[in-house]
Amino acid sequence: MSSRKMPSPTPLLDQVTEPRDMKRLSDRQLRQLADELRRETIDAVSVTGGHLGAGLGVVELTVAIHAVFDTPKDRLIFDVGHQCYPHKILTGRRDRIRTLRKGNGLSGFTKRSESPYDPFGAAHSSTSISAGLGFAVGRDFQGSDDHVICVIGDGAMSAGMAYEALNNAGALGSRLIVILNDNAMSIAPPVGAMSKYLARLYAARPLQDLKSAARNAVDHLPPPLREGARRARTLVKGLVPGATLFEELGFSYVGPFDGHDLSQILPILRTVKERSDGPVLLHAITRKGKGYRPAEEAADKYHGVSSFDVASGTQVKSVAKAPSYTKVFADALIQEAERDASIVAVTAAMPDGTGLDRFAKRFPSRMFDVGIAEQHAVTFCAGLAASGMKPFCAIYSTFLQRGYDQIVHDVALQRLPVRFAIDRAGLVGADGPTHAGSFDLGYLCNLPDFTVMAASDEAELVHMVATAAALSDGPSAVRYPRGQGTGVEMPRVGQVLEIGRGRIVKEGTQIALLSLGTRLQECLAAAERLDAMGLSTTVADARFAKPLDEALILSLAREHAVLITIEEGARGGFGAHVLHLLAERGILDRGCRIRTLTLPDRFIQQDKPEAMYAEAELDRTAILAAAEAAIGLGTIERQPEIVRLHRLRE
Amino acid sequence: MSSRKMPSPTPLLDQVTEPRDMKRLSDRQLRQLADELRRETIDAVSVTGGHLGAGLGVVELTVAIHAVFDTPKDRLIFDVGHQCYPHKILTGRRDRIRTLRKGNGLSGFTKRSESPYDPFGAAHSSTSISAGLGFAVGRDFQGSDDHVICVIGDGAMSAGMAYEALNNAGALGSRLIVILNDNAMSIAPPVGAMSKYLARLYAARPLQDLKSAARNAVDHLPPPLREGARRARTLVKGLVPGATLFEELGFSYVGPFDGHDLSQILPILRTVKERSDGPVLLHAITRKGKGYRPAEEAADKYHGVSSFDVASGTQVKSVAKAPSYTKVFADALIQEAERDASIVAVTAAMPDGTGLDRFAKRFPSRMFDVGIAEQHAVTFCAGLAASGMKPFCAIYSTFLQRGYDQIVHDVALQRLPVRFAIDRAGLVGADGPTHAGSFDLGYLCNLPDFTVMAASDEAELVHMVATAAALSDGPSAVRYPRGQGTGVEMPRVGQVLEIGRGRIVKEGTQIALLSLGTRLQECLAAAERLDAMGLSTTVADARFAKPLDEALILSLAREHAVLITIEEGARGGFGAHVLHLLAERGILDRGCRIRTLTLPDRFIQQDKPEAMYAEAELDRTAILAAAEAAIGLGTIERQPEIVRLHRLRE
Repeated sequence: MSSRKMPSPTPLLDQVTEPRDMKRLSDRQLRQLADELRRETIDAVSVTGGHLGAGLGVVELTVAIHAVFDTPKDRLIFDVGHQCYPHKILTGRRDRIRTLRKGNGLSGFTKRSESPYDPFGAAHSSTSISAGLGFAVGRDFQGSDDHVICVIGDGAMSAGMAYEALNNAGALGSRLIVILNDNAMSIAPPVGAMSKYLARLYAARPLQDLKSAARNAVDHLPPPLREGARRARTLVKGLVPGATLFEELGFSYVGPFDGHDLSQILPILRTVKERSDGPVLLHAITRKGKGYRPAEEAADKYHGVSSFDVASGTQVKSVAKAPSYTKVFADALIQEAERDASIVAVTAAMPDGTGLDRFAKRFPSRMFDVGIAEQHAVTFCAGLAASGMKPFCAIYSTFLQRGYDQIVHDVALQRLPVRFAIDRAGLVGADGPTHAGSFDLGYLCNLPDFTVMAASDEAELVHMVATAAALSDGPSAVRYPRGQGTGVEMPRVGQVLEIGRGRIVKEGTQIALLSLGTRLQECLAAAERLDAMGLSTTVADARFAKPLDEALILSLAREHAVLITIEEGARGGFGAHVLHLLAERGILDRGCRIRTLTLPDRFIQQDKPEAMYAEAELDRTAILAAAEAAIGLGTIERQPEIVRLHRLRE
Repeated sequence: MSSRKMPSPTPLLDQVTEPRDMKRLSDRQLRQLADELRRETIDAVSVTGGHLGAGLGVVELTVAIHAVFDTPKDRLIFDVGHQCYPHKILTGRRDRIRTLRKGNGLSGFTKRSESPYDPFGAAHSSTSISAGLGFAVGRDFQGSDDHVICVIGDGAMSAGMAYEALNNAGALGSRLIVILNDNAMSIAPPVGAMSKYLARLYAARPLQDLKSAARNAVDHLPPPLREGARRARTLVKGLVPGATLFEELGFSYVGPFDGHDLSQILPILRTVKERSDGPVLLHAITRKGKGYRPAEEAADKYHGVSSFDVASGTQVKSVAKAPSYTKVFADALIQEAERDASIVAVTAAMPDGTGLDRFAKRFPSRMFDVGIAEQHAVTFCAGLAASGMKPFCAIYSTFLQRGYDQIVHDVALQRLPVRFAIDRAGLVGADGPTHAGSFDLGYLCNLPDFTVMAASDEAELVHMVATAAALSDGPSAVRYPRGQGTGVEMPRVGQVLEIGRGRIVKEGTQIALLSLGTRLQECLAAAERLDAMGLSTTVADARFAKPLDEALILSLAREHAVLITIEEGARGGFGAHVLHLLAERGILDRGCRIRTLTLPDRFIQQDKPEAMYAEAELDRTAILAAAEAAIGLGTIERQPEIVRLHRLRE
């Protein structure tokens, strides 16, 4: 069981195409396999980019789980799933591992449709225990003896959802194995009392104990566990001195142990596999980025990286032509906060991703990272607003779904001026459909008294941040996409926009393109081609999804032969509200050639954002085609004589 | 400080119009005031109906808080808020207390717009600590010395949101008082490991301790606390033997103490007010329904009651003409479950409200009440579905908002056949806007591959439950309202409906009313009057909000002069998707007199449901008016010659 000897020269990874190939390997060979797997993971991510640190932190756990358990019959559920690259390599996907996060490639997360070894997909945090409990209860009904193993990080434990699941699992008592992968590091440095608690636990409890096993046969336990088990045997059920929080919630607790030492992990897993009869929590201490020095030494442990040089660790950074929306938002908010001491900023474990790390540098006491806790973040902001502060709640569109009830119940119903800064609106590229910000327009525009803005470029974003700061009469939101701006000239200072007023960007007479958000550039490109075809095209930037600029919309509808709305969101959002308005005002009664371009009614798979928008038929080509089709032209038949028709409807 | 003597005959409650009037009362008089307040609460609710048990459980806490603290400057935040009737009586609202939950009356919950003594409104559970922390942090910025007091029940502690807030509050360290009102009883009997933990805590720790006070001056403490404080002083920071879960999360912990004994409560609050310098949790043991025997003895502790006779406790039950949708759902599900052993049911602390208590009686092992934990409930169901079970997830529309991200990320993206049973869809009456099920159509219909049904009567609900049970190719939802059915004949067994196919209920030629849900009856009534006016009216029941019955919709639009959609939901739902479809198919190009009747873009205040729907302009009168207006008639000018126009558009 010793593990630190020289690895044998025979590459074992080549002999493992499925986990069952690992069954014939000795513990020593598993150690070698882990080393090879680590190198292969590093090499693959150096090509593809992606999440590296998380995967390197669970190499040994991944090897041990597949070696000990019978996946895929036993269900292995990775929380978040961004640590699953080593798992994918071991489960028949090594040949495609260098397609990670690319179009038609492997997902950067676990995904049910990709492999039976991914019984439950993920990408958002803290779902694994709930899902695992579902599998466990299902198994109990079906009378099978499968194991369910959830691997969840300490950061994910800050989410209420994980607590809800522990609370329920502890009470139900179904057999369930939760491995707490504690690297004292979620994406950002850990926050919250829970992470401090875990650190204390690690400091205070060097021994392992395994209560359920202890009840039976201590002698069967591997030596490192015996002492702990003896101690466990002395514990009474219930509230006992030294019981961990997990035990108080009904779990057996084993740990902490070294999550990189197979000589500890393997016997623990074997024992738990054989003996556990209820929920058990295995507390593994791991190191994010383990075994690759550039990752271990980076502040973010190489959480998400671009492709890089393996020897030096230098990442290939593409040259930005314009600042990212994230940075523009942060700088604009800092500027507002310089003038207004009541502005504070709140994020849910995404200080980097939202740019609020910049804000925190300037105003350390005015930024609050509440952990992966969107529900709390939203209502915390509502409380701040009720107390007279001006909170900006910066959360990605897709994660804000976690706080939807709080938006409705605590913010909108009380008309509290919480300002939502919604990053990653629309399609997001390599992170794929789990991270798409497709639904926020739908779930916000139907809320009374909400002001919903979407920036069409980075200068507009600056104005919208200023507008939100000035808007104290109810809640507001500004949404903007992932990635770089368009390179427009930046305003020195944000201007407060008139609420509910859009702008005409380009005047025309026949076709009106009404854009919300950053498809504006594509609309302008399509308009240029329409103009060239003799179809004089107006392009407007709605700016506000709510309240609608009714005068603008009605005039666009009345004075053009065709009106097309374009948005980076699903049906039921901006275009829907435009349609409702036109119906209500009787504009549809006598005919209105209106088309609403939205994300299609399916999930768009990962790819470059441009490719995803092409697939979604929201690029210039699709806008052009929609305009042509609406006006009565096939995309093929572009006869000049038809094209030149002026004011087609008259 | 003794309290059990005979109350003085002078009614003190008449002398208290605001909390500051309590400042001159002795502790003994406060005891008398509490007794009077309890009687007044019972008497008021005997007239109005509403939540009784919860308020009776916090009478002494409410008196003590207002006596010790300086509300409204000090912020008192009741979690859920249904226990706030005594608080309302003490804070200037006694004169209106018999208007509780009625149209234009007092809200049954705390409400910011109603009183400065309600600094943060509630109705959904588990928001108080988040909101309180917002107030506390705001106060710290503003340099004031106000106190923030949150009163939260043990049931509400099962929600992840409360844990997220504790986790953040424990780490931030702002001065915050959380009173855990532990009656071992949320609405339903408590579930989950947390409630067991609290019970153990109560059993194991008869003494109080107050760590922060202990550090300074034990002698200043009232006698009952001295011993605990001495013990507390011996404790070291960090993970210590006997530290409670709350201490492990960074709170000082005091308790448990008797939440009905003012001689315990008052000194504890006074000490905490004077000495606490961080987050502190006061663990009060209370009895739901305390002091009113019929409530104490009822299984549900008089959680929600109709008006009743004070002497006997007998509630006035209105005679139901038809079974409630809730009961019909439960019976239909039981019937399906008899045939299919893979059907299981999950609820989030609403076994009564969803009817799953009936299901649990028949199939005790197949019903899971996960506590107030909607996020977990949804993903638990996703795991069950992935394991091959057929989970029905029964949650009110308004509470399902809590699980929205899980619906998107864990259910829809993975196309897992979780069946959502969405009770309380649409307006709900006395519970008011916080409980309205207004948004589910909006937040579900934009999700790919979701099947969304709405029952137009209780027989339809039976068919839809059968349809959901049969539908294993993706997620589905059926929504239905609060209250009684229409009294239609009930089918012996549910029929599996054709997916995405509506039905014509009444044939006509000129006006088409396309109803989704239980407005169908109002549509039929409006149609009768339209017919009588010579406007031949078709009435259709869409049944499916998704997928749309495209053939039906297109034919209704093409073959009628006017098409009106009606739904019990906000804009952006069913009507929006009908509009999207008509735009896409070019039906709007040459004119379509379509109107989409939805809930208006404002929150509708509590009243009888009929009155709320009239206010929302979704009753027969409003439908009639909309049809008349659409066809070109003012509601006044009903000239027969215009009315008789046939096929107006031709």
